[in-house]
Amino acid sequence: MIKTDILIIGAGPTGLFTVFEAGLLKLKCHLIDALPQPGGQCSEIYPKKPIYDIPGFPEVLAGDLTKNLLEQGKQFEPGFTLGERAETIEKQEDGSFIVTTNKGTKHQAPVVAIAGGLGSFEPRKPAIDGIENYEDKGVEYFIKDPEVYRNKKVVISGGGDSALDWSIFLADVASEVTLIHRRNEFRGALDSVEKVSELKLLGKINLITPAEVTGLNGDGKIESVTVNKDGEEFKIETDHFIPLFGLSPKLGPIGDWGLEIEKNAIKVDNSRNYQTNIDGIFAIGDVNTYPEKLKLILCGFHEATLMCQAAYRIINPGKKYVLKYTTVSGIDGFDGTRKEAPKAVVQSIQ
Amino acid sequence: MIKTDILIIGAGPTGLFTVFEAGLLKLKCHLIDALPQPGGQCSEIYPKKPIYDIPGFPEVLAGDLTKNLLEQGKQFEPGFTLGERAETIEKQEDGSFIVTTNKGTKHQAPVVAIAGGLGSFEPRKPAIDGIENYEDKGVEYFIKDPEVYRNKKVVISGGGDSALDWSIFLADVASEVTLIHRRNEFRGALDSVEKVSELKLLGKINLITPAEVTGLNGDGKIESVTVNKDGEEFKIETDHFIPLFGLSPKLGPIGDWGLEIEKNAIKVDNSRNYQTNIDGIFAIGDVNTYPEKLKLILCGFHEATLMCQAAYRIINPGKKYVLKYTTVSGIDGFDGTRKEAPKAVVQSIQ
Repeated sequence: MIKTDILIIGAGPTGLFTVFEAGLLKLKCHLIDALPQPGGQCSEIYPKKPIYDIPGFPEVLAGDLTKNLLEQGKQFEPGFTLGERAETIEKQEDGSFIVTTNKGTKHQAPVVAIAGGLGSFEPRKPAIDGIENYEDKGVEYFIKDPEVYRNKKVVISGGGDSALDWSIFLADVASEVTLIHRRNEFRGALDSVEKVSELKLLGKINLITPAEVTGLNGDGKIESVTVNKDGEEFKIETDHFIPLFGLSPKLGPIGDWGLEIEKNAIKVDNSRNYQTNIDGIFAIGDVNTYPEKLKLILCGFHEATLMCQAAYRIINPGKKYVLKYTTVSGIDGFDGTRKEAPKAVVQSIQ
Repeated sequence: MIKTDILIIGAGPTGLFTVFEAGLLKLKCHLIDALPQPGGQCSEIYPKKPIYDIPGFPEVLAGDLTKNLLEQGKQFEPGFTLGERAETIEKQEDGSFIVTTNKGTKHQAPVVAIAGGLGSFEPRKPAIDGIENYEDKGVEYFIKDPEVYRNKKVVISGGGDSALDWSIFLADVASEVTLIHRRNEFRGALDSVEKVSELKLLGKINLITPAEVTGLNGDGKIESVTVNKDGEEFKIETDHFIPLFGLSPKLGPIGDWGLEIEKNAIKVDNSRNYQTNIDGIFAIGDVNTYPEKLKLILCGFHEATLMCQAAYRIINPGKKYVLKYTTVSGIDGFDGTRKEAPKAVVQSIQ
């Protein structure tokens, strides 16, 4: 059982910033995310795209924002359960909650902050008969650890940035990379398209277009895929089949936690601290809704900050917290580090 | 008469970010601030101090945050009335407001956003008989334009960072700089103290401690100051006397605008869009109060953003605005510039 002060569902920018604000109040955080790495959409969907409306950044790449937020919170030593989806929640007699993931990992905390964005990102699965039988037996919809593919044969399917970028990356890792797309045209960053062209000419990526994977074969695990090109079917031997057809967000199991839902979002009390209809469960960032709500990252930052104050009062009943400014008081990390402004000297001038 | 869409009282970080968010909605802003430059406290009080709690910045100097916010908003061409304090407000028959400064400058807008921080920063004035008669006649409490002092004689008084830093700066501009402090010890950044020591040895700063300016002399304008050192009085010829004894914030005339005030802050409706008790006047950032309010810059950013949406509805009645993401739609500046993410290409691979 993983125990923490604030259990955060969702490791996107709002969840990551919560770690920092909670840390200032000496509260520990643990984050659960269905994606294999922190950052939410910013890392998974558009890491190389610039965002223009983060205050103080005339322009910042979504991936860099994630890196900065991780850096900002790291002295407060957050825990992570990644690649697992929060599935069930049970209130305990002592008022705390136990949240269990789809893989059975259990987490306990007095406060739960749902920072789930548009929901957990579920891969769009291709319509291939029996594909579910090969999931985690050679079929993967996310690449969690590229080392898994070292010196293996890999077939990637898809026509967007993910398919292009992972084909490029794995060309140096796998023993054989085949990229299959149902059109001749790919849609992605210019340099990714050019790089794949180059690797194809060098024989490092085996490109098959227009074509589709129509069948999976193997006993207990993938041994080959059946490909249809121009009506003709043939097999390609492979150890892995990775369909990268995009992700679509789903509120998912959180929708069944007894929370008030409106338009696929969780209703919260924005006049105070973004608590849901269940005491001790808060919803912050894009996942929540209230009058005049805007689904912007900067709003999630504010909501997280006010929520942490409420969490402090739940966790430390009766204790008074006086806001200290980081510029004045500095920051004491849980890892023993200290950050502070250079002190003024008092010194006579000779 | 200066006309704009949103008239912002206060050019601190919250006011500056409002320019950007308003610009996304095609609304123009004009800012009034009592300080001679934008940035509020961040520029005037602690430009060289690190802030640790701006989301996405593990550490940022307050002065750099100001620069970034100015850069982020500049394509929306904000107007500025600096070094003047907003004094009176009058509601017009058409629903707009006219705000007049202490120097008589008039501004008209359908929406007023008070982003006044802790209030307008008023200089602490030394108790010298008749000093008010010399204000703007050789006595200045702020340095607005250092060029005013080129080849002039200047006496600076004070023992903190402002007195040290301006003495250093003006040593290269003025014909003569005298720094007077009532103690031998200065309190400031180590490098500033060391630099003043050095300039004193080079004869570029004339240092008199412990001493006080006790009188001002001159006919219609300053010609000399009377200094008391160890009980002995003498005069120093000078063109300017600049006492830098710190600033203290005062809500000031805004307190008489008919707004609901609580604990020196303006009450707003945080359940919607931070409007005050007067329709069309909003209060955002440290100047406002509501249940569970936190006086943090990041909260001001959120409040500014929601306020702009409300301003849009006031200025464009009946027109529907659909939120567009800058990452997707880019930004069209009022100055004709366009920022946008690099477009994906759709291209076949040979």
